[in-house]
Amino acid sequence: MDFNEHTATRAVQDSFRDTPDPRLRELLDALTRHLHAFVGEVRPSIREWEQAISFLTAVGQTCTDTRQEFVLLSDVLGVSMLVETLNEQQDGTESTVLGPFHMVESPRRELGDSIDLIGEAQPCLVTGRVLSGDGTPLPDAEVDVWQCNEKGFYDVQQPGVQPSGNGRGLFHTDPEGRFRFRTVLPSHYPIPTDGPIGRFLEATGRHPYRPAHIHFILRADGHAPLTTHVFVAGSPYLDSDAVFAVKQSLIVDFTESNDAETAARNGVQAPFRHAEFDLILSRELR
Amino acid sequence: MDFNEHTATRAVQDSFRDTPDPRLRELLDALTRHLHAFVGEVRPSIREWEQAISFLTAVGQTCTDTRQEFVLLSDVLGVSMLVETLNEQQDGTESTVLGPFHMVESPRRELGDSIDLIGEAQPCLVTGRVLSGDGTPLPDAEVDVWQCNEKGFYDVQQPGVQPSGNGRGLFHTDPEGRFRFRTVLPSHYPIPTDGPIGRFLEATGRHPYRPAHIHFILRADGHAPLTTHVFVAGSPYLDSDAVFAVKQSLIVDFTESNDAETAARNGVQAPFRHAEFDLILSRELR
Repeated sequence: MDFNEHTATRAVQDSFRDTPDPRLRELLDALTRHLHAFVGEVRPSIREWEQAISFLTAVGQTCTDTRQEFVLLSDVLGVSMLVETLNEQQDGTESTVLGPFHMVESPRRELGDSIDLIGEAQPCLVTGRVLSGDGTPLPDAEVDVWQCNEKGFYDVQQPGVQPSGNGRGLFHTDPEGRFRFRTVLPSHYPIPTDGPIGRFLEATGRHPYRPAHIHFILRADGHAPLTTHVFVAGSPYLDSDAVFAVKQSLIVDFTESNDAETAARNGVQAPFRHAEFDLILSRELR
Repeated sequence: MDFNEHTATRAVQDSFRDTPDPRLRELLDALTRHLHAFVGEVRPSIREWEQAISFLTAVGQTCTDTRQEFVLLSDVLGVSMLVETLNEQQDGTESTVLGPFHMVESPRRELGDSIDLIGEAQPCLVTGRVLSGDGTPLPDAEVDVWQCNEKGFYDVQQPGVQPSGNGRGLFHTDPEGRFRFRTVLPSHYPIPTDGPIGRFLEATGRHPYRPAHIHFILRADGHAPLTTHVFVAGSPYLDSDAVFAVKQSLIVDFTESNDAETAARNGVQAPFRHAEFDLILSRELR
């Protein structure tokens, strides 16, 4: 039987019948079905398919050790967030996308350290606890944070301007499950627009901005890891994040404070910004 | 409303509502729907999605000026062939995939020239006509041909071994619509297996082979261009082409011949192989 519009999907699915890994076979069976259904529905011209291939090629070729354009593509199509949502634990802090900027290891720092290595902008204090689902504090939990600076750039985007590791830190909670670190208020920012995804957003009339946020990955013994953000209340673009990552429960007040005692205790100068929140991890089921 | 499994597809489709080009908007609307349906059905783990992103990144990064790994991916998923089939003209020679090896321009040659620049293998004569759908011969039609050598390699795969342009030629039919050129019998061959697509085929228990064929792109005034192959009858893998490109109507006998007069007239030594076939173009509808 010749390959044609009606036999195509079955022919390709059959080609995967000897895939040793049953999960891989399941994924490819479904991928073939959905991909062929898409193509069969929109009936791309030869030229359109060539353009699609060129676009995907350019996305891949834009990736480097410090830039992940395919994650960006997954992000702007809402797929990263969908995958994150499908894997969400039910009784903890809500998760959100990893994003493309966790490409370098965060430098290990002590509680209270500053992740801002420049010191020119208003200081910001971030404090809180890591808790288990039942409210028990989790000591020695790993708190991996990364954020852009007050102008909206991550260190890896400005290698000559920001020192490596600026805006990044790997902390461990104290015996009461507390974390605290100093930083600057992150800015809203555009995702990188100088590559294929920038051209894609331009062609679709979409803006490239993300509301201001700090990234977190949390790990604690016996608990599922959590990848999330804390968003800065009042930031522009909270209602139109280019990567669909905002959840209402993740928006936190970064209040302006003149509290001299807190400032002195944490080594910041008043006035400063202060965000205080707990992050809750789900027990691992296994 | 928060982004969740049920609101995700609509949220992403809404983000494309201001796309100026209506066809692009239609394509992205359908892409979002099918892509999210795939992800929602298979519910990939975070790790699985990271692996998918890494794979696509590697596919893009493998592409160079002389290698197109994303075309290969589209080929082995049967999508290239599906797109070709959906665009097929109804009253001409059947079309098949372009493939990843038409990356360099074919050198212009005169009718009767050899596209084999090495001359070590048994000669092969290819002759025929380019006709319109009603059987009218098409003079001055462009016949762009490319093929691998008798060992299964294209020139661009062996830059130090084969001269550039070996196995390639751009011909124009004579006043009776005839074409003729000399070559060697192409071999069946594996698609490139030293990259991500090779690993993909390995992981899925699929062989990488394509049956022996010569590629053609045909162009003539007033007619739709045709991209196709002529397959060598009796070649291995005619029933399991790694890229699903075989159609029964495209299989042609490359007969062994001792015809001294034909040999002398065409500048080959007997015994030689000879394939004779017509290629039929559809009138352009516009």
